[in-house]
Amino acid sequence: MECYFDNSATTRPTQGVIDAMVSVLADDFGNPSSLHRVGDAASVRLEEARGTVARALGCMPEEVYFTSGGTESNNIAVFGAAHALRRRGNRIVTSCVEHPSVLECMKRLEEEGFEVVYLPVDGSGRVSEESLKESINEKTILVSLMLVNNEVGSIQPVKAAADAIKSAGAPALLHTDAVQAFGKLPIKVASLGVDLLTISSHKVHGPKGQGALFVKKGTRLVPYVLGGGQEGGIRSGTHGMPGIAGFAAAVSELGDIEANAEKVAGLKEHLLSKLTEIDGLTVNSPAQFPFILNISIPGIPSEVLRNFLSESGVYVSTGSACSKGHRSYVLTAMGLDPKVIDSAVRISFCRFNTKEETDCLADCLLRANKTLRKVKR
Amino acid sequence: MECYFDNSATTRPTQGVIDAMVSVLADDFGNPSSLHRVGDAASVRLEEARGTVARALGCMPEEVYFTSGGTESNNIAVFGAAHALRRRGNRIVTSCVEHPSVLECMKRLEEEGFEVVYLPVDGSGRVSEESLKESINEKTILVSLMLVNNEVGSIQPVKAAADAIKSAGAPALLHTDAVQAFGKLPIKVASLGVDLLTISSHKVHGPKGQGALFVKKGTRLVPYVLGGGQEGGIRSGTHGMPGIAGFAAAVSELGDIEANAEKVAGLKEHLLSKLTEIDGLTVNSPAQFPFILNISIPGIPSEVLRNFLSESGVYVSTGSACSKGHRSYVLTAMGLDPKVIDSAVRISFCRFNTKEETDCLADCLLRANKTLRKVKR
Repeated sequence: MECYFDNSATTRPTQGVIDAMVSVLADDFGNPSSLHRVGDAASVRLEEARGTVARALGCMPEEVYFTSGGTESNNIAVFGAAHALRRRGNRIVTSCVEHPSVLECMKRLEEEGFEVVYLPVDGSGRVSEESLKESINEKTILVSLMLVNNEVGSIQPVKAAADAIKSAGAPALLHTDAVQAFGKLPIKVASLGVDLLTISSHKVHGPKGQGALFVKKGTRLVPYVLGGGQEGGIRSGTHGMPGIAGFAAAVSELGDIEANAEKVAGLKEHLLSKLTEIDGLTVNSPAQFPFILNISIPGIPSEVLRNFLSESGVYVSTGSACSKGHRSYVLTAMGLDPKVIDSAVRISFCRFNTKEETDCLADCLLRANKTLRKVKR
Repeated sequence: MECYFDNSATTRPTQGVIDAMVSVLADDFGNPSSLHRVGDAASVRLEEARGTVARALGCMPEEVYFTSGGTESNNIAVFGAAHALRRRGNRIVTSCVEHPSVLECMKRLEEEGFEVVYLPVDGSGRVSEESLKESINEKTILVSLMLVNNEVGSIQPVKAAADAIKSAGAPALLHTDAVQAFGKLPIKVASLGVDLLTISSHKVHGPKGQGALFVKKGTRLVPYVLGGGQEGGIRSGTHGMPGIAGFAAAVSELGDIEANAEKVAGLKEHLLSKLTEIDGLTVNSPAQFPFILNISIPGIPSEVLRNFLSESGVYVSTGSACSKGHRSYVLTAMGLDPKVIDSAVRISFCRFNTKEETDCLADCLLRANKTLRKVKR
């Protein structure tokens, strides 16, 4: 039995996703920019997909811009907003636990002369509402705060950031990287108060290489990827139609998000109840987001545990897939003991995980606890 | 009978391409960055694909960087090279008939203070070797010259650009946008003398949303898309595995490039022989590249002809799919009569086009000539 619990790294595409992609590849293979019947048919598929994503976000179709993934969406949003508003101010506020596709853009913006404030997080990986209020002022042009952290599942106070921008009278645009949240938390862009929101296909059982950026109507971004002017000039390049169709299919299959979260919360509880016999086990993730469980078994290094599980057909990750080989900066920012950090593994669920798979994972962890810790002593 | 002659806009994916994508989606769905068995299996697929593309270009696998398409490859190459060498000089040389994904980057670089020289073309759409020699000097840090033009198929003297860089003792990197050339001309990066070369999947019967950039070993680029550091930091973002696998399948199916070109040259000749009865027909494209034939039937506006053909199930384009609605800057740069430009349509072949399809296209063009020109008078 193979048990895949690395769904925050990527997910298995559904049959519906595969079928939608094959249909676009085999039948409607045209370039939506082509002004003939084959192009028109592709264009219809493109706009259907845009409508599907828009409905899921509670926005207008024309506010959805397709990109090649979460990383590109974050680059377009962060650079596009900072460069568009550079005459209104110089200050950018973000957190120190953002994804590298935001943090690396911030470093570049610092080189360009922007002042970037990296807000700290508490022991649960969360930025405080007070620090948002204190750091956002009338010179702040961009706030980028992820909705759910990819390593520990902490939910950030994005709505509070929107309120702080308003209170401060800041010209800031508010961006949230919702890659981990999308499809797992009910998201409506209006109630979050964001101007820009990043989502990715392959975290919700769609294909890799596809994402989208919500850009609130009337928001001006300086285009980052330049060319033929597709996607309103925000993201040039021939539309990646197989990915777009697959993404839309995945979104249309999301189902009842709250019911899925409840199911997964049950699996997580079940798992934790079975792990109580592991001496000194720490849970590094806060309880609020059921899809991500970050734990440490003291004395077993992360890689050792990951490899042991992998050999048993059980797949979890150490840190995130995007920062392989380095000590987690997220867990470090949370102030965890280095020993805990070096033992941390991330178990990430999806709505398709079963109780049997969870039992299998629990059994493997218990076996690891017995055999690997014995070896170490 | 549907006859698709818009292969320079996009191509129909083959069954082999679709199968490769489905296999990655259904079986090896992992994230190649994940350090467990599912990730490893994806990683194997990734490196197989890289090897396939490298063999086609005559380069080392580690010189192939996967991107989301030709536009992104061009952005990464042009910005990456200019920013990496800005301390060595300020001058960039390109042509006025490049694709918008190069030209728009050039405009941005001009705003950043670079001096960009846009070389003119002759009546066949070709930059002269002399103008390359004259324009490239010791302050030139980048030369970007497409290998085959997308609207008329003119082949640019890329090798001469390499020689001119050497003669001038310029620190310049040489980039070529080979999107239209790849799979249709035999390309070996070493004999072209390029440092950077852009290719795209969907022009060779692979999926849309996938491309690659050849970066000669030892070439330093300032990364443009920032994040988790995938693809050696040149192009961050989770690998778009379905697209990568589909692209590699398309590349592996290219077959005998010279034989394909010969076959297509035969179709083009056949077509032209049937069109001799069209009074005043002009051929706007040079003869050297068989896959693109740009013609004008005086008195029939491009859109009118394109729509007439489309209604008969025959698909050609006006200009390129990337510049819809504007008068062609390529044909303008070639010095063509505005009347000829406003009547121009691009017929673009692929190796799968047949004599029957070509006959069908010819018949439709002859019919258009009779009915549409009559209406106009």
